[in-house]
Amino acid sequence: MASILPASNRSMRPDRNTYDGKRFVHVKNPYLDTMDEDILYHLDLGTKTHNLPEMFGDVKFVCVGGSPNRMRAFALFMHKELGLVEGEEDIKDICAGTDRYCMFKTGPVLSISHGMGVPSISIMLHELIKLLHHARCCDVTIIRIGTSGGIGIAPGSVVITDTAVDSFFKPQFEQVILDNVVTRSTELDKELAEELFNCSKKIPNFPALIGHTMCTYDFYEGQGRLDGALCSFSREKKLDYLKRAYEAGVRNIEMESTVFAAMCGLCGLKAAVVCVTLLDRLDCDQITLSHDVLMEYQRRPQLLISNFIKKKLGLCDQIS
Amino acid sequence: MASILPASNRSMRPDRNTYDGKRFVHVKNPYLDTMDEDILYHLDLGTKTHNLPEMFGDVKFVCVGGSPNRMRAFALFMHKELGLVEGEEDIKDICAGTDRYCMFKTGPVLSISHGMGVPSISIMLHELIKLLHHARCCDVTIIRIGTSGGIGIAPGSVVITDTAVDSFFKPQFEQVILDNVVTRSTELDKELAEELFNCSKKIPNFPALIGHTMCTYDFYEGQGRLDGALCSFSREKKLDYLKRAYEAGVRNIEMESTVFAAMCGLCGLKAAVVCVTLLDRLDCDQITLSHDVLMEYQRRPQLLISNFIKKKLGLCDQIS
Repeated sequence: MASILPASNRSMRPDRNTYDGKRFVHVKNPYLDTMDEDILYHLDLGTKTHNLPEMFGDVKFVCVGGSPNRMRAFALFMHKELGLVEGEEDIKDICAGTDRYCMFKTGPVLSISHGMGVPSISIMLHELIKLLHHARCCDVTIIRIGTSGGIGIAPGSVVITDTAVDSFFKPQFEQVILDNVVTRSTELDKELAEELFNCSKKIPNFPALIGHTMCTYDFYEGQGRLDGALCSFSREKKLDYLKRAYEAGVRNIEMESTVFAAMCGLCGLKAAVVCVTLLDRLDCDQITLSHDVLMEYQRRPQLLISNFIKKKLGLCDQIS
Repeated sequence: MASILPASNRSMRPDRNTYDGKRFVHVKNPYLDTMDEDILYHLDLGTKTHNLPEMFGDVKFVCVGGSPNRMRAFALFMHKELGLVEGEEDIKDICAGTDRYCMFKTGPVLSISHGMGVPSISIMLHELIKLLHHARCCDVTIIRIGTSGGIGIAPGSVVITDTAVDSFFKPQFEQVILDNVVTRSTELDKELAEELFNCSKKIPNFPALIGHTMCTYDFYEGQGRLDGALCSFSREKKLDYLKRAYEAGVRNIEMESTVFAAMCGLCGLKAAVVCVTLLDRLDCDQITLSHDVLMEYQRRPQLLISNFIKKKLGLCDQIS
């Protein structure tokens, strides 16, 4: 849709970040464009060493996930699904010069690993958002595909997050800036979540639901596990906490969604979180799935996102 | 030193965690020993699938760092320095079944990567501490060797941490347990820090110092950088914050030291943090070092720790 506002009015709405109907990535840093060079240190890319618009200008979908191997597998899967002509061997790690993150590109789809936890994904997101800005990308959708612990739902279920919440079930992310704490919203794009949910219904035997996702800073004590090196609470306290989370609408627990929602929201990226659950935390703490079942579960978010991307690209008829 | 307490008294002092003069690793979880099997999921190891005492029982030094490649390089370097007989090709990634962390063993030295940020290192530490417990290791020293941003000191300086502090310059770590916040001490072993500092003096042209290390949850806004995707403060506010940090005794900033100090302290592990600084944050935000200089700086903590380990093993005469 072309903008119906006169140019003079458009400049008054920087937060919308639209121009001629295109939604650009919104960097909120007045210093950035005054820099002679921007080195994206943890991605081993830079504005002087790489032609970012040429390398990334056509990116429309960014998929992020914790594990490098999983994000490589997703890139290869997307490549096949999109029926692209280049060979698989051309899909190389763009960040091969560093071992902090991996990045693969296939057509308009970028697939990046982010490691585990809020700090690790936040470093990647800062540099990714700057990359998309420098590359002048527009109309980008970003989706986190991950693994998680479920609450009160069968292992293997795919949770599409409507709102990311913190350990206190609040839809907010506390960002420390210098020595001030700033609270940011963790709302995600409801329309995109609905679209993904509708997409999931077309895949046979695909257990998906929309729910809140709780994001913690710790896998053991912070998620009420009884099997860490440290555990100071009882089984009853653990179950009470997880049941209260369920009552607050939480259906799964992971470790990145609040900062992902907060940063993508601020920077004008349409964002979703789609995680498969590997266990029901009301039943157990340890992940005891066989390798094959684990692999099959991990492919579920990938299958959903590949169907969604094909639909958006007008390749629906290829959906099985 | 053999215990001088009668057996009946020894059992009254679980916190000392000593027995016959040996300092065992202290797991503080009453549930752990009731478990039939313990799967260390993110290390791809387990008590039923692996003979942990046989694999790890002789470990005396554990070195951890963010980057997998760096921790592999350290293992190969230690292997050479210890003059061990097996070939380098025998030093394989023990956690090859997962891409979350890498682990290498050479003689009594274990080298493990932990990714970036508090949550990522805390998952690894929970599973590492359980591993050392299951393997019945004793008298273990653990050292984090990392990279960091310096404050008011020359790039390339090696900071040996006396105390890890948070973003508010407080020597504490806030752990969320269920929905309670528990404050833990971040004191490190002062004697070990002094020993490392003395060791550093024997290396020619080795710029080392003892100071506080600040641990943040974010590389950009949390460390006062002006070059992130988001920046809402002025250059003056940034410099004011970093100068206040300097006045509070902080000499470098990284992203893992508080939880490392807190968990190792609770579990009876003698712990140190030794990080090289890649830039002086009072001068700049971006890391612009050439590849060769970066590599040389990153080897400095490795050189210090290898000299320290050789000294402890009575191989001092090999120190160059």
